[in-house]
Amino acid sequence: MQALSPTDSAFLWMETRNQPMHVAGLNIYTPPADAGPDYLPKLLAEWGKHLQAQPPFNVRPVLKFGMWYWEEDKEFELDYHFRHLALPQPGRIRELLALVSRVHGNLMDRNRPLWEAYLIEGLPGGRFATYIKIHHALVDGVTGAKMMANGHSLNAEERRPPLWAQMLAKHPTNRPKRAPPSLMEQLAAAARAGRDILPGIGSGLWDIVRSGSAHDASALPFQAPPTPFNVEISGSRRFASQSYALSRLKHIGQAAGATVNDVTLAICAGALREYLLVQNKLPKKPLVAMVPVSLHGETDAGGNQVSLLLASLGTHIADPLKRLKHIVASTTEAKNKLTKMPRLQKLAYGITSISPLAAGMVTGSAEKHPLFNLVISNVPGPKDTLYLDGSRLDEVYPVSIPTHYLALNITISGYGDRLGFGYIACRRSVPTLQRMLDYTHNAILELETALGIGHHHAAVPTPRAAKSAKPATTRVPKKTAKAVAKLVPVKTVKRAVAKTAAKAVSKALTRAPRKRAAA
Amino acid sequence: MQALSPTDSAFLWMETRNQPMHVAGLNIYTPPADAGPDYLPKLLAEWGKHLQAQPPFNVRPVLKFGMWYWEEDKEFELDYHFRHLALPQPGRIRELLALVSRVHGNLMDRNRPLWEAYLIEGLPGGRFATYIKIHHALVDGVTGAKMMANGHSLNAEERRPPLWAQMLAKHPTNRPKRAPPSLMEQLAAAARAGRDILPGIGSGLWDIVRSGSAHDASALPFQAPPTPFNVEISGSRRFASQSYALSRLKHIGQAAGATVNDVTLAICAGALREYLLVQNKLPKKPLVAMVPVSLHGETDAGGNQVSLLLASLGTHIADPLKRLKHIVASTTEAKNKLTKMPRLQKLAYGITSISPLAAGMVTGSAEKHPLFNLVISNVPGPKDTLYLDGSRLDEVYPVSIPTHYLALNITISGYGDRLGFGYIACRRSVPTLQRMLDYTHNAILELETALGIGHHHAAVPTPRAAKSAKPATTRVPKKTAKAVAKLVPVKTVKRAVAKTAAKAVSKALTRAPRKRAAA
Repeated sequence: MQALSPTDSAFLWMETRNQPMHVAGLNIYTPPADAGPDYLPKLLAEWGKHLQAQPPFNVRPVLKFGMWYWEEDKEFELDYHFRHLALPQPGRIRELLALVSRVHGNLMDRNRPLWEAYLIEGLPGGRFATYIKIHHALVDGVTGAKMMANGHSLNAEERRPPLWAQMLAKHPTNRPKRAPPSLMEQLAAAARAGRDILPGIGSGLWDIVRSGSAHDASALPFQAPPTPFNVEISGSRRFASQSYALSRLKHIGQAAGATVNDVTLAICAGALREYLLVQNKLPKKPLVAMVPVSLHGETDAGGNQVSLLLASLGTHIADPLKRLKHIVASTTEAKNKLTKMPRLQKLAYGITSISPLAAGMVTGSAEKHPLFNLVISNVPGPKDTLYLDGSRLDEVYPVSIPTHYLALNITISGYGDRLGFGYIACRRSVPTLQRMLDYTHNAILELETALGIGHHHAAVPTPRAAKSAKPATTRVPKKTAKAVAKLVPVKTVKRAVAKTAAKAVSKALTRAPRKRAAA
Repeated sequence: MQALSPTDSAFLWMETRNQPMHVAGLNIYTPPADAGPDYLPKLLAEWGKHLQAQPPFNVRPVLKFGMWYWEEDKEFELDYHFRHLALPQPGRIRELLALVSRVHGNLMDRNRPLWEAYLIEGLPGGRFATYIKIHHALVDGVTGAKMMANGHSLNAEERRPPLWAQMLAKHPTNRPKRAPPSLMEQLAAAARAGRDILPGIGSGLWDIVRSGSAHDASALPFQAPPTPFNVEISGSRRFASQSYALSRLKHIGQAAGATVNDVTLAICAGALREYLLVQNKLPKKPLVAMVPVSLHGETDAGGNQVSLLLASLGTHIADPLKRLKHIVASTTEAKNKLTKMPRLQKLAYGITSISPLAAGMVTGSAEKHPLFNLVISNVPGPKDTLYLDGSRLDEVYPVSIPTHYLALNITISGYGDRLGFGYIACRRSVPTLQRMLDYTHNAILELETALGIGHHHAAVPTPRAAKSAKPATTRVPKKTAKAVAKLVPVKTVKRAVAKTAAKAVSKALTRAPRKRAAA
């Protein structure tokens, strides 16, 4: 039995029927060219043989003496966690998003390990999807992305066991067992929890707020206006997602002198501005986004390791380039603060890894005076093409957590040369979320047009057309795939990759994070 | 805004993530012979046009001054309530039950009307299913069955609007609006609620217990033994169902001098005995079942109107005929008590319509000294073959509510010449629930063999074979269908049926209930 960290515990404490605290990943795959109709049944049968789960997929939370512990589930039942679904006809992306919207709103059974893995058949052209849901008490976004990569291989030949059958070496639940804590130890831990979480959030955020308001009036990210996103939420969800070529964002960044992260924020800003304009609810003050910054790489403790910066999105500015400049100024200012901040790691651990919870906990008037309007996360992903049982991973979309007073969350995940935007929202407070996809598309075009680049792209589509447009099936550059194939001859692949794939994938993942998260 | 009755409110108060308080119906249909591949898409499109919901499908619960009210959902979103699903391959009953098991464990969003309707495609031979989930605060079982019948017609030609587009005239939410209650009225109502629910249960059950133990030692149904079913439950569910010819149960009843209801209880008793024997957990004392008895027909108030009787199931008796005799003696005794009971309706309303809640509320030691071991409901259903948009309704299965200390619920629904047994249980406390289907089959054979009847039926199958055996697709006697067709010529059907179908179905439903429920 392993005690949860205060941060991880918070995700269990704060969970309600309207505010489930799990994250998920939606992946879309193309089976190998020679896959027959029995390809998926065989895959299901193969995975179904892995009846035992490895840590942390085998632990369930138990509450003892007011503290949460991870305990092995002795009656682990794979059949409950691993689920087979099919899309109804016509099986478009639309049906897939409708399914994910519903499933993501459902709480998990706390008597069992807090994860569910869905294999979803019935996409056009024989494609299939996985939706893997894990409680935030068990993993943060970056660890989740690493888990995801662990389940894949770098070539089409290798077969790896399913996610739950692989041990995640560094996870806290996987530490050597020790004697159960004494009562004194537990009381001390509870005291630490209180000190780390509650006052930490207040004083930490206060530091940021004070330094922000003293410095630069043009980047005042701490006077977030009330918006429709800052209300109490319901238990129903809507999920919308779409991916874009990373190269387009890079071109915009090069032309405008901004990082890819800033361009990502500017695209979200453009989409949010159009969404609120259409609803006639655009505030005069700019929206403020809370942007988590991963500390993975700086520490080695595993678990939830995230800090944050607050960025003004300049949504009050009509001109897309001026808006982008405003964002660059705001994030530059915020990053300076982050660098100077004392006890960064401790603050990060105590305050911001429970980012979705912070707003509601800090302020009782979150609706009228939100500290920030929404969370925009950029989760680093693998650069190389990944495979699952020979099927090529085409698209990767993160599905995050809306909370009370933060009804909309945007999480962006990189994969290969694409960026997948995942919008998740309370279905009641944020109606017609799916239109955000059109607005995102428009925001990119708007920037490209203003910079005089990217004229080869299609003109602004009507909202209707853009919504039903299927993403192109080929996401992976053929060059990369060929290059990988050349580097590792098929004959020697199986043994070589078995040893090196885990390292390679892990490397591919850890290469990017700090650069991109801090960029 | 309409205040909920104390009973209906209780279903909202007692609901937790481990104990959702909704009921559901699973129906299986055969489309018309000439149905093309666009049959279901057309049906979906047709139903999708009914964007407005009628009472009670348009109200959501709101909590004001500590009391629950129904309030119209002004932002009703059909797309959220009406859902399209598909079974994964191979689309057997097994996949359908797995799907229902999962969906039934999910809480509903309380910010919206408390119902969900699923149309499930992908069963073999072009068949499809509906799973309709309604919160128990909104309807009881019998009202639910009437609603279900309202959605159907008596012939293959008529087209009726979907369930939510039809007004349920007598439902409490459909009463004329009145001024909101004053504070004094609300306090008075709250006081009534307290008086009616809590002491009502205690004293009412105490009456039964006292009279029971004084009377007849052989039918002591109030000393229920501890069983694996009387434990705290988890949030995950397992559903299993199978239907049997009513004629088989009638033959058994005639040969043994028992009512069909007693035979139903005896079949459940046989199945429970085998289940517990296999697990080596059969108590020496007989299991006690709580059997709800509908009061519909006696009153006209709508809503949740149910009383109960407690029946010893004689599970300690190995001989199936002696076990049946024990059950007959027990239910006869219980019915005598029920008849003599003073203030029957009031007791019924105050105590027993919240049957699933009673055990946990009455006793703090429900695990060691349960008042009864499980609930077995027999919900009356329509006798005539029903149609939905030309598709023949083949099978009807109720899906009920397991609660803390009542981890297993058996609900049986009649339809045509079949009885559908629906077993719903906490997936953790009641493992391998699906084997109950084999044991039910065995229990029927055991009685037939003991009585020397029904030798034309198959021998006891191995558990494996029985589990995967698909129920025969034809459930409806051709004679009945032909007779109906003759009685009502197709040409005049549309106008005539539009007027009379509702009445006829309602008649068909109300004809049976009292006889069968009290039998």
